[in-house]
Amino acid sequence: MIVLMAAKASAGQIADVVERVTKAGFSVRRSGMERVVLGVTGAGRAPTPDLLDGLSGIAEISVDGPEYRLVSRAFQAEDSQIDVGGGVVVGGERLVVMAGPCSVEDPETVNRVAASVAAAGAHILRGGAYKPRTSPYAFQGLGEEGLYLLRQAAAANGLLTISEVMEPSQIPLAAHYCDILQIGARNMQNFTLLRELGRSRRPVMLKRGPAATLEEWLAAAEYVAACGNPDILLCERGIRTFERATRNTLDLSAVPAVKARSHLPIVVDPSHGTGVRDHVLPMAKAAVAAGADAIIVEVHPEPERAVSDGAQSLRLEQFDRLMDELRPVAEAVGRTV
Amino acid sequence: MIVLMAAKASAGQIADVVERVTKAGFSVRRSGMERVVLGVTGAGRAPTPDLLDGLSGIAEISVDGPEYRLVSRAFQAEDSQIDVGGGVVVGGERLVVMAGPCSVEDPETVNRVAASVAAAGAHILRGGAYKPRTSPYAFQGLGEEGLYLLRQAAAANGLLTISEVMEPSQIPLAAHYCDILQIGARNMQNFTLLRELGRSRRPVMLKRGPAATLEEWLAAAEYVAACGNPDILLCERGIRTFERATRNTLDLSAVPAVKARSHLPIVVDPSHGTGVRDHVLPMAKAAVAAGADAIIVEVHPEPERAVSDGAQSLRLEQFDRLMDELRPVAEAVGRTV
Amino acid sequence: MIVLMAAKASAGQIADVVERVTKAGFSVRRSGMERVVLGVTGAGRAPTPDLLDGLSGIAEISVDGPEYRLVSRAFQAEDSQIDVGGGVVVGGERLVVMAGPCSVEDPETVNRVAASVAAAGAHILRGGAYKPRTSPYAFQGLGEEGLYLLRQAAAANGLLTISEVMEPSQIPLAAHYCDILQIGARNMQNFTLLRELGRSRRPVMLKRGPAATLEEWLAAAEYVAACGNPDILLCERGIRTFERATRNTLDLSAVPAVKARSHLPIVVDPSHGTGVRDHVLPMAKAAVAAGADAIIVEVHPEPERAVSDGAQSLRLEQFDRLMDELRPVAEAVGRTV
Amino acid sequence: MIVLMAAKASAGQIADVVERVTKAGFSVRRSGMERVVLGVTGAGRAPTPDLLDGLSGIAEISVDGPEYRLVSRAFQAEDSQIDVGGGVVVGGERLVVMAGPCSVEDPETVNRVAASVAAAGAHILRGGAYKPRTSPYAFQGLGEEGLYLLRQAAAANGLLTISEVMEPSQIPLAAHYCDILQIGARNMQNFTLLRELGRSRRPVMLKRGPAATLEEWLAAAEYVAACGNPDILLCERGIRTFERATRNTLDLSAVPAVKARSHLPIVVDPSHGTGVRDHVLPMAKAAVAAGADAIIVEVHPEPERAVSDGAQSLRLEQFDRLMDELRPVAEAVGRTV
Repeated sequence: MIVLMAAKASAGQIADVVERVTKAGFSVRRSGMERVVLGVTGAGRAPTPDLLDGLSGIAEISVDGPEYRLVSRAFQAEDSQIDVGGGVVVGGERLVVMAGPCSVEDPETVNRVAASVAAAGAHILRGGAYKPRTSPYAFQGLGEEGLYLLRQAAAANGLLTISEVMEPSQIPLAAHYCDILQIGARNMQNFTLLRELGRSRRPVMLKRGPAATLEEWLAAAEYVAACGNPDILLCERGIRTFERATRNTLDLSAVPAVKARSHLPIVVDPSHGTGVRDHVLPMAKAAVAAGADAIIVEVHPEPERAVSDGAQSLRLEQFDRLMDELRPVAEAVGRTV
Repeated sequence: MIVLMAAKASAGQIADVVERVTKAGFSVRRSGMERVVLGVTGAGRAPTPDLLDGLSGIAEISVDGPEYRLVSRAFQAEDSQIDVGGGVVVGGERLVVMAGPCSVEDPETVNRVAASVAAAGAHILRGGAYKPRTSPYAFQGLGEEGLYLLRQAAAANGLLTISEVMEPSQIPLAAHYCDILQIGARNMQNFTLLRELGRSRRPVMLKRGPAATLEEWLAAAEYVAACGNPDILLCERGIRTFERATRNTLDLSAVPAVKARSHLPIVVDPSHGTGVRDHVLPMAKAAVAAGADAIIVEVHPEPERAVSDGAQSLRLEQFDRLMDELRPVAEAVGRTV
Repeated sequence: MIVLMAAKASAGQIADVVERVTKAGFSVRRSGMERVVLGVTGAGRAPTPDLLDGLSGIAEISVDGPEYRLVSRAFQAEDSQIDVGGGVVVGGERLVVMAGPCSVEDPETVNRVAASVAAAGAHILRGGAYKPRTSPYAFQGLGEEGLYLLRQAAAANGLLTISEVMEPSQIPLAAHYCDILQIGARNMQNFTLLRELGRSRRPVMLKRGPAATLEEWLAAAEYVAACGNPDILLCERGIRTFERATRNTLDLSAVPAVKARSHLPIVVDPSHGTGVRDHVLPMAKAAVAAGADAIIVEVHPEPERAVSDGAQSLRLEQFDRLMDELRPVAEAVGRTV
Repeated sequence: MIVLMAAKASAGQIADVVERVTKAGFSVRRSGMERVVLGVTGAGRAPTPDLLDGLSGIAEISVDGPEYRLVSRAFQAEDSQIDVGGGVVVGGERLVVMAGPCSVEDPETVNRVAASVAAAGAHILRGGAYKPRTSPYAFQGLGEEGLYLLRQAAAANGLLTISEVMEPSQIPLAAHYCDILQIGARNMQNFTLLRELGRSRRPVMLKRGPAATLEEWLAAAEYVAACGNPDILLCERGIRTFERATRNTLDLSAVPAVKARSHLPIVVDPSHGTGVRDHVLPMAKAAVAAGADAIIVEVHPEPERAVSDGAQSLRLEQFDRLMDELRPVAEAVGRTV
């Protein structure tokens, strides 16, 4: 049973609810900041709403609903518009474009990409400094140096930055250099990391796990929201299926399906979603047509020399073409780029 | 080893090849009509191209290529444009729209749908007369009566028709009433049916099986082509994954991935692909943006009363809106509706 | 709504039910032979049991149950024991073993395999004469000659035979030469074929489709049963997943899950289930430990020379070892081989 | 390129290799403790073995091999036998059985389970103190109190303990109370956690992620091994597929497939693998027949009152029966319990 307290519930009202359910033998888990949410669980029998009869300060009690509340469309009917800094808002009328190399490799490459994608109209520079790699023997990223180079390249070209954090200890540094902190697909249910980012002031982009259902993904976002950070972008990046022609299967129906369930904006990553450079452009257009609020793509001046994900990185001129072709599609669905 | 004979190879040249490989102890499987293709197989060792040294009339020998040849982009570089009748061409500049009820139920319903979708701009009326159903106790379609009603409704509204055939014995009747014959997802590898439709003169729409890879799908199309029928439309209708928020996972990356491998046009079915009425419109737009040549959607005047697939059928006014919103997206990618 | 008529329901009682529901505007689909089952469907509203108030000869009415009835455990509590001929019963105390080459290739090979597997203790000789192949250019089987060779080799070694049929026209010949007719995984929902085999007198082995749920598989078996043939073996042969270390993922939990839902015996195919020769033996033992009633494995004297599926075929001596190692496992779960 | 240094390579020899590849413009990543492994990566071109010509102390250079080395069967031909304490060895002739409640809930329950499973012959008591839960509002475990209760109950009944750690900060406490530390399925690629457990002295049980390939799973184990901890148990617990009759699809072919690739012992979890109480017993037997070195099952005195995973927990008497039925199967494959 999930109890949503009223926005102006007093400490006393909250304490009364906690006392009532505890005395009845149930456990309470308190979450939420501005809006307190109480998860009531118990062994052997399920709590029922009548348990709270007569108490005040309660906004809503849900028994059989989904496992998330704050990120749900039922909690907030209107779309969230998330201001990520520098006047860039994700979830509004403007389609936001994030682009950059998979990994930050060296100053020259990241600067060259930044200058090129900025000129083409991108808003945010992406680039990995901490890289989750399947093998311990693969390149693991430049760490703080990578974050610094990313920031320098972005600043010189009027771009914001986004980069991945893999563990709580990286958050302070990453938050210093980046406007948005990314939670990678492998960490979608790293609940420790989710909670720590929930306590951060930085907007978070939460990638969907390759085998995560929509419901699990939204419940993961709820961890961030329940710890106090409402600035969450969801990012569809492909799910794992039997098909081998593409690296993952980009699930674009997640765009309308998420929007039906949640007020959070959704980003689509056609680079990881397909793993094939030549499929990135059509799938980016498809994502925008399906209603995505932003896209994130990998770009590299010489993909065949990239230390990671070269096969799916666009060349600089391909990104120019992507922006050119994206504009009319965005306009066709009522957006600008 | 697959041997593609030259377009003008003589009977004698073909016989020479067959004789050579047979004498060497291999088996030959002859396919193709205008262009003869010989599949050479053998136990214990693989045939090699030098086996055919000195023979004439051979266009190409492939050893490690894909399991299809006639439908491949390597065989024909330019896109196939398939004239399905009445001036409607699938694979050209115009986006083709197929719409109609899941099942043909009665004259009133199919006529009402036909009139409405025709007015909105659809080109082809869909409707099932032979229905493959998971349970033997479910409604199995009206049979010939259904085909007749479909044809009547289409003719009265200037539409072409498409309907599914489930077995070879249904082909003559279906070919009498329909402009395009559909092979359903469950029958994608019903090789008997594929061969019989290969001998038909009607264009065929081959739906992708819910667990079929792209390569298997194209190899299934090759059965039709190898039996003499080059007029094949491929239809992506969703694959089966772990995700339960949608009935299937619509794999839109199949659009660019098929186009990279094959010259055949591709149709997208967002109704079966999502199974959720409210997701059909965004996914139809996404399909067009990704490069689909046609879409096929289910429409019903009262979806809650439909005998099958009501949950994914658009209402008449929703289809009108779909056409309205599809036009600017089609134009944004260089197409008309 | 599914109406199961009593075992001794008269023609008049059945007619009364049909008339009642038809007059109320519903459609009826009659199935079953000894036990008549009526599927009642309707557009716009669901039929309810009270519609049949006062009628006689009705054994059971189910509204929200599974889509199968005759093959369910609810219909028959005790396990089906299917006599496939020659004193071999599948579903009883004895574990049944089917073995043989993927394809029947030539007399020498099939005879050699038959003699070897018979000596090792197998009961049934398998071998494909009609081969469903992904590509039209691959070896498609010897047809009747293959069936004849299979029968000869089996008869000479005291074995029964099983082979696949791909279409209704092959049934008479296959039923002439084979004791069990196999429906391949690709044809699990070829409803025409299912119905025709339902009218046959031969036991049928129905392989699970690579993307079929248990419920769909049992509903497919219901087609056979509803057309009059109760002698159905179910065969788990692996489902399609993301894992690439094996050809398919052998779903052994299907054994207890099927037994919980159905009285039909279940066969396991570890050859197709894994696609890897060295995994066949451990998975055969696992299948028996899980409760399988029979196993079916591919055996070839020289797998590297086999025309199909060589990588998963056991060598003759590996099959001997399999039988040796299977016996104690069978005994450990209360069975003999 | 992965360079495995000889067991007795000197610091100087290692430094020479590092210097050589660095000077050539490549990056080096050093791992391993007793055996040093160097991962050599570079942008734009691949390193080749001749780069190291003339250097000494190198045991092996692999270029196109798998992404793991220390855990591979090629590195160590004989099976690892892991002494987890108290004379219990996983990977030897004796089948090891771990059992206990999903979560540690209260002293009475965990004591009752411990006494019962110990009497039935289990070796290790399982029980969660830190629970990864999809929703932030669900019960998250008792934390240190849970570890303490688990240890008390185990000690009183002559059992060892295993419990999950979700983040590095939990390792010291968990290592104090537990003989084996479990990495849950959601954390299989939490590389930070893997590295920290690699620096621990406690044996680790690494659960396979629900969408992880075998290769990714082994590469995750390599992280632990490369950081110095060779005592790793792999645990198959089901993968995520389309099938809904079971919670996951238990991939028992992972047992032989892992054993072909790695020397590490493998544990099977039929509780999470099926999610259905009545399927646990047959699948446990199947796991042992397939060659599993250990099984881990959930047991609860009153599953319907369990705070988590009640549907898949065995009752106490069902666990007794499991042990009774497991013994003959273990003996049939040459093992004792």
